[in-house]
Amino acid sequence: MNAGEMRARILDAAEALLRQHGPDKLTVIDVASALNMSHGNVYRHFSSKAALRAAVVKTWLDRVAEETGSIADKDAPADIRLEDWLKGLAKIKQRKVTEDAAILAASARIGKEAPQLEREHSKRLISQVERILQDGLEEGTLPGAHDPTSAARAILNATFRYHHPDLVANGGPPDQQTAELNDVVTLMIKGLKRS
Amino acid sequence: MNAGEMRARILDAAEALLRQHGPDKLTVIDVASALNMSHGNVYRHFSSKAALRAAVVKTWLDRVAEETGSIADKDAPADIRLEDWLKGLAKIKQRKVTEDAAILAASARIGKEAPQLEREHSKRLISQVERILQDGLEEGTLPGAHDPTSAARAILNATFRYHHPDLVANGGPPDQQTAELNDVVTLMIKGLKRS
Repeated sequence: MNAGEMRARILDAAEALLRQHGPDKLTVIDVASALNMSHGNVYRHFSSKAALRAAVVKTWLDRVAEETGSIADKDAPADIRLEDWLKGLAKIKQRKVTEDAAILAASARIGKEAPQLEREHSKRLISQVERILQDGLEEGTLPGAHDPTSAARAILNATFRYHHPDLVANGGPPDQQTAELNDVVTLMIKGLKRS
Repeated sequence: MNAGEMRARILDAAEALLRQHGPDKLTVIDVASALNMSHGNVYRHFSSKAALRAAVVKTWLDRVAEETGSIADKDAPADIRLEDWLKGLAKIKQRKVTEDAAILAASARIGKEAPQLEREHSKRLISQVERILQDGLEEGTLPGAHDPTSAARAILNATFRYHHPDLVANGGPPDQQTAELNDVVTLMIKGLKRS
């Protein structure tokens, strides 16, 4: 097993422990014993408990960004991709709230220890939307996206309620949130279609 | 002093106590002694501590709704009124966050005891926006507001980040929030101008 594989195995074990026991219980010792490994072996890959926890959160955030990234890169007109991207992100967050409550709580907790993770994730999402808007401007489906950077930011701010984990968790029934988001997205895309 | 005046005097004293000492310290006994009044006199107007606290919060919320209501009723085209209304509400919330932190904290706390207050307040705000959109539809400045009720809801949801007290308090520098809100509002109004 090479270093990359070992790292992935440690992260898998750490994620499983987080799911079962929550963020407080995740220590290097727990992970090492779950893998029948020496602590030193785990420490060779993650220099501290904080580094291990941050790496688990980064793995989740990367999965979200890959999932939305595949929508951003779809072969379709930009206005359709934008709509699908926004609805897709909201659906991922709803799924996390219902299926991965323990992980989300851990993520919020760990996010406070490592705020740069959230900032980088947020930048990555903004750049995906920016790319869609740039395409829409060039192909003419979104002529109102004169300034793709500030438009991307505005779009993510306007849909904040539907992708911020706490707000999704406390924002009422998923069907109602989906209906509300659809109205917001429709209105914004109409705005972007106007040059 | 008639009953209405006495009620107003009690509410003023209760608000002052809340500002000074926070929501935990607000009791009928404190208010009565601040006014050199018997407890019975206060109880005649407010049947419980909870009723007194809820009445103070209702007073604040009513002030907000009156302030935004005067923007909604201005003599100006609906698209201008909509923009002013949204920016006005955000400004009121920013002001509360910086100047009235104690009151906001109390309001959030008491809001949990009396959730119908927030619901009624929210309905009142939605109906102000609805009225503006209805006018915009009739006068032709906002031809995209076919369904003023769902459009009003979409507009308030899209600007949630800029009028929810906790999000305003934790949403970064006021100037940056104002710039972000402006982008969101501009985009939505463009959408509403497209029929």
